[in-house]
Amino acid sequence: VAFRARESPYPIITVDEALKIVLEHAETQKVEEVDFRKALGRYLAEDIFAKDALPPFPASIKDGYAVIAADGSGLRHVMGESTAGDMPVRKVTPGHCMRINTGAPLPQGADAVIQVEDTTLEKWTDDGKREVEIKLLTVPKIGQDIRKVGSDIAEGSQVLCKGQRLGPAELGLLATVGVTTIKCYHAPVVGVMSTGDELVEPDAPLTKGKIRDSNRTTLISQLTDYGITVKDLGIAPDTPDGLLKLLKSALKNAEIIVTSGGVSMGEKDFVKQVLQADFKADIHFGRVFMKPGKPTTFASLVFNGVKKLFFSLPGNPVSALVTCNLYVIPAYQKMIGSPNPRRTIVKARIDRDARLDPRPEYHRVVLSWKPDDPTPIATSTGNQISSRLLSMRCANALMMLPPKTDNFTEVKVGDIVDAMIIGRI
Amino acid sequence: VAFRARESPYPIITVDEALKIVLEHAETQKVEEVDFRKALGRYLAEDIFAKDALPPFPASIKDGYAVIAADGSGLRHVMGESTAGDMPVRKVTPGHCMRINTGAPLPQGADAVIQVEDTTLEKWTDDGKREVEIKLLTVPKIGQDIRKVGSDIAEGSQVLCKGQRLGPAELGLLATVGVTTIKCYHAPVVGVMSTGDELVEPDAPLTKGKIRDSNRTTLISQLTDYGITVKDLGIAPDTPDGLLKLLKSALKNAEIIVTSGGVSMGEKDFVKQVLQADFKADIHFGRVFMKPGKPTTFASLVFNGVKKLFFSLPGNPVSALVTCNLYVIPAYQKMIGSPNPRRTIVKARIDRDARLDPRPEYHRVVLSWKPDDPTPIATSTGNQISSRLLSMRCANALMMLPPKTDNFTEVKVGDIVDAMIIGRI
Ligand SMILES: [Mg+2]
Ligand SMILES: [Mg+2]
Repeated sequence: VAFRARESPYPIITVDEALKIVLEHAETQKVEEVDFRKALGRYLAEDIFAKDALPPFPASIKDGYAVIAADGSGLRHVMGESTAGDMPVRKVTPGHCMRINTGAPLPQGADAVIQVEDTTLEKWTDDGKREVEIKLLTVPKIGQDIRKVGSDIAEGSQVLCKGQRLGPAELGLLATVGVTTIKCYHAPVVGVMSTGDELVEPDAPLTKGKIRDSNRTTLISQLTDYGITVKDLGIAPDTPDGLLKLLKSALKNAEIIVTSGGVSMGEKDFVKQVLQADFKADIHFGRVFMKPGKPTTFASLVFNGVKKLFFSLPGNPVSALVTCNLYVIPAYQKMIGSPNPRRTIVKARIDRDARLDPRPEYHRVVLSWKPDDPTPIATSTGNQISSRLLSMRCANALMMLPPKTDNFTEVKVGDIVDAMIIGRI
Repeated sequence: VAFRARESPYPIITVDEALKIVLEHAETQKVEEVDFRKALGRYLAEDIFAKDALPPFPASIKDGYAVIAADGSGLRHVMGESTAGDMPVRKVTPGHCMRINTGAPLPQGADAVIQVEDTTLEKWTDDGKREVEIKLLTVPKIGQDIRKVGSDIAEGSQVLCKGQRLGPAELGLLATVGVTTIKCYHAPVVGVMSTGDELVEPDAPLTKGKIRDSNRTTLISQLTDYGITVKDLGIAPDTPDGLLKLLKSALKNAEIIVTSGGVSMGEKDFVKQVLQADFKADIHFGRVFMKPGKPTTFASLVFNGVKKLFFSLPGNPVSALVTCNLYVIPAYQKMIGSPNPRRTIVKARIDRDARLDPRPEYHRVVLSWKPDDPTPIATSTGNQISSRLLSMRCANALMMLPPKTDNFTEVKVGDIVDAMIIGRI
């Protein structure tokens, strides 16, 4: 091992180039049928049409009376009621009206609804149980307070498009039109592994030379928070055999494999070697011009006819979480069919001066909006060394600082910079 | 029933008043111990301290050589290596160095690390297996590329505060400091029920006078998307007995009960009646000055010593989803311990003219950010009638239109308005 490489053999590429390569290899998955109750966050692989109209009958918008508009204002005999869930059998005749609820079918003969607030009770049965006559205080107009058949959704109309994300409203639309089994793109499982002889489980005793593994916790939580199904692959030791064994089991259980650590220039950094020598994986890149995250490595291979993606992230806690947000989540989004898998970038106002690094830097910030300023304030989380996970605490965005040039060496408090959203707003 | 109220007996209150009442009754829950692996999205009920330093030993930041800075640049004899996970036993002596990995412990005697890229190999063993002598191309400085003990986290220091939300980074910090059981506020279960004789399950045949229930799907999905544990309580019929039966079972299974429908002025709108007559619930409000969502009703009662909250939302699909976002989610956030349970409001630029309603209106929009404009564009989802769930499709925010006044009757394209974030950005 004396003649190990003393410089990385991998050309350093830009973040844009790296993301482009990742998205090229992150192929939209095969189509599968899914029960709509389990489809939250998935993407449709088909257009969805309404097989019937909504409402399927003319429906009242108010609680009130179904009337004949031509009768004008004034008195009406009350001839019963139309309640939601039943089709009224009687027909409203001139001079009469029918009580009606919000959402209930309009009885035949009626062509308007008057809300109860615009009526007074004039006569009732002796037992006080039934209304006999009411007075309309306003003049009804034809069609007033009636939802026409198909006015919300026309029969045969398209309600959702292929490529649409299924959030709460979209799933509700599926329920509305009665399409309960849908075609979606397959959602890959993401396996998460840590590597390193120095790592122990968070609840194990901390012996000499060891530290607790936090990367599996942060990566699994981050992916889970995006609704991704994650498999915990454990901690791999710093030996080619140990790595090989865990990676083999990973290939059986996951379509995307995310490791952290073992990708630097150290003699125990076996991840790239094992991927190439044992799995014949294509390493698409092995270094990215960014801070943190320079040793980020991306590879792919075909296993049992299925393309598998490997993201070998740096071992430093911040580097792993930042690069997971920059590369793994967009790759997953592309694979499940998102037409726009990239992260959202907004403008934010920096809360302090910051010196620029020769590399583009992803500075962790908390975005917050003040009344009367459309531009959010980006509050830095402090010291940005990549081993300091405290710099991710509360962060909901990554401020994207440009690389230093001769003329441009720092950003000043109040400057507006790009910020990539990585948390809930 | 002839002498039913012809106007709502409930005073109409503002959204601000309604939310204030909700948050007053949404009490922070009792403290319980939770495994940190199950705590994503929960709020800490205790401060968390580091019981040991990170790193626990001086650690290398680079792959390279541990050296004595006073030796200057030039030649060094290589005396072995320090790898991550092991404590080196030998001491570096003048003129010598030790190979070292990123994260590995600094051997005694050494006071700087030189990265491998800044060295050349000068002599090696005949079999090519071991480095014998290297040359430093730069002059090392004391402390260079070394993380001092406790430089990321000092022993005994506070890493998380009471009231902190546990996201990916915060859970990673718990793993790092080895605190795997934590005190959190109890997370209430939310039960979701639809009411109405007109409703059938999404996969049932659509018979005369019926429509498919979509509100449970949208509400359950919306709450699930926020990591809330939801119980599906089914569809209650429009009878006091049927409602009573379902609400009784709801009380056993959930701390927050969300119903939709049955809160208007119709004679089949029994929700308020059952809450008051059968459960002796306090109805805190029964109407809110907003569009959509006017009949929104909020009540509470104590059941087996536990305070239960009732949100009786309007039955129209949009009204139900909007009021869930406005009231139910902030109440839940307050109960699980969020110090800031209100929704995030940003400024957005409206993409069209919009006439104002006498009521404050929550107009559904899609926010998107264009390069070079810090203010997002709010694209309206079209016709905003509250029965039209299509107006929630793709919406990630509610544009908050002010009520109409004599002098202020519409907003114009390009105007900047408040927008409440309700989806992922
Ligand atoms: Mg390692
Ligand atoms: Mg109803």
